[in-house]
Amino acid sequence: MKKALQEAEMAFEKGEIPVGALIVIGNKVIARSHNLTELLHDVTAHAEMQSITAAANYLGGKYLTGCTLYVTLEPCQMCAGALYWSQISKIVFGARDEQRGFITLGTKLHPKTTVVQGIMANEAADLMKRFFAERRK
Amino acid sequence: MKKALQEAEMAFEKGEIPVGALIVIGNKVIARSHNLTELLHDVTAHAEMQSITAAANYLGGKYLTGCTLYVTLEPCQMCAGALYWSQISKIVFGARDEQRGFITLGTKLHPKTTVVQGIMANEAADLMKRFFAERRK
Repeated sequence: MKKALQEAEMAFEKGEIPVGALIVIGNKVIARSHNLTELLHDVTAHAEMQSITAAANYLGGKYLTGCTLYVTLEPCQMCAGALYWSQISKIVFGARDEQRGFITLGTKLHPKTTVVQGIMANEAADLMKRFFAERRK
Repeated sequence: MKKALQEAEMAFEKGEIPVGALIVIGNKVIARSHNLTELLHDVTAHAEMQSITAAANYLGGKYLTGCTLYVTLEPCQMCAGALYWSQISKIVFGARDEQRGFITLGTKLHPKTTVVQGIMANEAADLMKRFFAERRK
């Protein structure tokens, strides 16, 4: 999750909402990314989406069975929907997104997917708060 | 919707689940695409996702206000989640996807988005049925 936070900080520095993600299989990092929606003018360029595409590319198949996603913020409907299709084994996220996160909005995950939340949640939430505080200035 | 069906037929010919999509602004088609999840080994390569990215690229901004998406099948959670972020004005789809469509699964759309369903639904559903019948052979 530390590496995902580093990715989130890279997003922060680019003026992007600071979310970072990593996909791991065994002990190997096979994808790392951060939110690029502003730079790419693309609402689909969330950190998770990029990591899903990159990990599948690495594995040479579209299913992420055996993989774990680490992401600093609770995934949104779109990302949770993509994770559903990927059949990823585990999702570990940091801070909750009470408004637009998949838990609040009831997005369905694959039955094979387990979820762990709250890992380095304070660090992830602080980064978000700092970002929006700076943007309001 | 006829053009979206043509896209779906192109997917069919490639062995992809036959879904086609188009994005229109005014009378101008600014994106057209079909499902490429198998070819690209990428669960995120749904027709709608590609069209959202292409349309935003054409417009030079991430919001699809004023745009209409035509898609042969009811969008899934992922695509509906992306459409939420895009703030697209209108979604027109053909056949229902009772199992994995956003209506059944309750995915939230943007309050500015209106939905029309059932346009050339029989043609879209027939194409899907034909695809799965051939795959079972």
